[in-house]
Amino acid sequence: MPFRIDVEGCLTEPGRDDALTGEDLKAGLETLTPATRKLAEQRAAGSGPEFLQLPERTEDLARAGELAASLAETCDDILILGTGGSSLGAQALYALADSGYGNRLGGPNLHFLDNVDPHSFDDFLAAVDLPRLGVVAVSKSGATAETLCQTMLVLEALLTEVDESRLARQVAVITEPKDSPLKALAERYHLPCLDHDEGVGGRYSVLSVVGLLPALLAGLDAAALRRGAKEVLDRSLGGGAEERGSPQAGAVLSVEYARRAGLTQSVLMPYLDRLGYFGLWFRQLWAESLGKQGRGLTPIRAMGAVDQHSQLQLYLEGPRDKLFTLIRMSEAPEGASIPADLAEDPALDYLAGHSMGDLLDAMARATAETLIRHRRPTRVITLDDLDETVLGGLLMHFMLETVFAAELLQVNPFDQPAVEEGKQLARDYLKKGARESA
Amino acid sequence: MPFRIDVEGCLTEPGRDDALTGEDLKAGLETLTPATRKLAEQRAAGSGPEFLQLPERTEDLARAGELAASLAETCDDILILGTGGSSLGAQALYALADSGYGNRLGGPNLHFLDNVDPHSFDDFLAAVDLPRLGVVAVSKSGATAETLCQTMLVLEALLTEVDESRLARQVAVITEPKDSPLKALAERYHLPCLDHDEGVGGRYSVLSVVGLLPALLAGLDAAALRRGAKEVLDRSLGGGAEERGSPQAGAVLSVEYARRAGLTQSVLMPYLDRLGYFGLWFRQLWAESLGKQGRGLTPIRAMGAVDQHSQLQLYLEGPRDKLFTLIRMSEAPEGASIPADLAEDPALDYLAGHSMGDLLDAMARATAETLIRHRRPTRVITLDDLDETVLGGLLMHFMLETVFAAELLQVNPFDQPAVEEGKQLARDYLKKGARESA
Repeated sequence: MPFRIDVEGCLTEPGRDDALTGEDLKAGLETLTPATRKLAEQRAAGSGPEFLQLPERTEDLARAGELAASLAETCDDILILGTGGSSLGAQALYALADSGYGNRLGGPNLHFLDNVDPHSFDDFLAAVDLPRLGVVAVSKSGATAETLCQTMLVLEALLTEVDESRLARQVAVITEPKDSPLKALAERYHLPCLDHDEGVGGRYSVLSVVGLLPALLAGLDAAALRRGAKEVLDRSLGGGAEERGSPQAGAVLSVEYARRAGLTQSVLMPYLDRLGYFGLWFRQLWAESLGKQGRGLTPIRAMGAVDQHSQLQLYLEGPRDKLFTLIRMSEAPEGASIPADLAEDPALDYLAGHSMGDLLDAMARATAETLIRHRRPTRVITLDDLDETVLGGLLMHFMLETVFAAELLQVNPFDQPAVEEGKQLARDYLKKGARESA
Repeated sequence: MPFRIDVEGCLTEPGRDDALTGEDLKAGLETLTPATRKLAEQRAAGSGPEFLQLPERTEDLARAGELAASLAETCDDILILGTGGSSLGAQALYALADSGYGNRLGGPNLHFLDNVDPHSFDDFLAAVDLPRLGVVAVSKSGATAETLCQTMLVLEALLTEVDESRLARQVAVITEPKDSPLKALAERYHLPCLDHDEGVGGRYSVLSVVGLLPALLAGLDAAALRRGAKEVLDRSLGGGAEERGSPQAGAVLSVEYARRAGLTQSVLMPYLDRLGYFGLWFRQLWAESLGKQGRGLTPIRAMGAVDQHSQLQLYLEGPRDKLFTLIRMSEAPEGASIPADLAEDPALDYLAGHSMGDLLDAMARATAETLIRHRRPTRVITLDDLDETVLGGLLMHFMLETVFAAELLQVNPFDQPAVEEGKQLARDYLKKGARESA
């Protein structure tokens, strides 16, 4: 497996008021056996949740690869338009290639505008070279107001600088293969179009072309992402289902702690900047899948070590209402050591000769241990490396964990019934036209 | 006042089980009268929390202005090193100048490395032009491990490309005027040094040189930031203390909802990208100030409208455990309208002729109304504009709200006793040397 999960820091001795023992975990895992078996059967039969099929697909990658190559040829920068599940997965993947200072892999730089703030939007358009800008607009339904608004304004901006016939070489669309406003725009300008799988909701789409076209554009190994996901899927729905590090175990821990000890929040805290967007992807996945019928823990993305200087006081001495998942590397990258002559101050002897990675790792281990000492349930995921295979595995792990948590909470992990109401109201306000500035 | 706060969406009719009525709010405000009076007296006497004095200082700005001018002259990019309160305030301010695509004001581009991930750190150093790089290292104590580690590695990198004598023109330090490892480094290389106020903790330091040197470097109007803060301070400790939009009222709402209805989380959700870092600044302020003795609501930074596609399902139909604060603009900026010929699809009639800002505003209003319909306590802050004066006012509002919430929770808003334990443990691990990779 591409990573190890240690849940000992979540397990307590019997008799304590908030106890969740190894025996309790085992009992919880047994209740999930039928659900695991059912998913495994559905996967084998090609039925059930379609995201389970994605790791073994190949034909869609070929088409996405051609499109990526053609866009990358004409474009230095690629703008990904889309919001929520149409953007967060791709952002999680692209973080492997770019720390914020440009694409290290030599491909085009990707930019994600997933909001509709005209201020940032205009700043982006002013900064970019429009004739060398590629655009990928992503909307499952083809009717998302934000994405349509952005796409139309970008098309208009492009048309001020390039000929209409060129749009088909700069702009592509990912949407379901049915009539929609986005589909109509694509047809009008003859834009290349990839199909959004109809059976895969946005927040489960990262291993479809929604995540993998951007990954391919960036120069990442999309097949390796799927390979890592497949490895976790095989094991989680097979012999590894009852291991303490399984997705099922993660689901049991969250839901049982919520039930027994009143936990209301689940904190995911990677000690790697490259997993920052992965944390935001998880935050959507967990919140939208489980937050219904008055249930669901609030997912919180924290970043190690920096949030030790922001949230750790609350985590250690605030209410005992959080489950923690820390992610760390087992080996620091080879990095420059702090030069001994700069660290000659006796107060710095603990730093001399160490690298920044050593410091980060010491912080991660110290924080995990301190949380556990303060009786905050804490699990630790240890990565030996962070590449496409590992990230693919992490993505699949958390999608499965979410689906199993939904099983325990008795909610549907694939719908989001509450968000329609606000969308309709926003449309009504726009139709009425007048801005209420009071 | 530079903004309006509407709390009607937090107030309910008497008789409901989770009721907090206008009368309850009034009663809560009265309990804070002595605390308000005390702060006003302390402010007048120059005693008490020192952050109250910052809005009227001027001499420190003159010195910071000179340093900023000298750094900006030799540098195209400025790296701000520091973590937690040594960075988040400056990031909140810099967002006024830069949406992520460069400094719109024409000054140098600022970069904030507030973590110790060697991967991002090395990517930054590889991307930047070292002879034109300015550095400001910020640590109140001068002994923060992360900041020292970063500073030493940056100094080493600089010394590979520039002469040691030039460091004093490229690197500056903000720290307390006493012996410390950072101070020793500054002395060794004759680096210019600004004093960190000893009586102002990091998370209350945004209106000191810690926030204002970066603001000045970026080309922002630091005096206007202080002016906006002063306006809010005058009113909040004067005749406006008992208004429903006062910081005191915000504190009462949070604490009373936690007490009566079991709320555990406070969500700050600006519908402006430029307030994204402000939200992260608030998250530290609130968590570290209040999260102690088992008390404190968890602060959550959400972003409108994008988090409607990530968190809104949970917010509307998950547990009723959150207080919401939305921030919106009363007027959208003049922006391009969606061209009618692109939006000719009948399904898009609600968008045609509207700007992106209109859409964003409709989303903000619709979300506020939907939250209230779902009986989630929701207040709305409306800005007529977003400039230095308004941002300064918002910063002061939330610092005061935090201090008053601490008064109601009976905790000390100025300490963070729990974080020392983990720091010491991390030092021990580093001293032991061996990495535990098991």
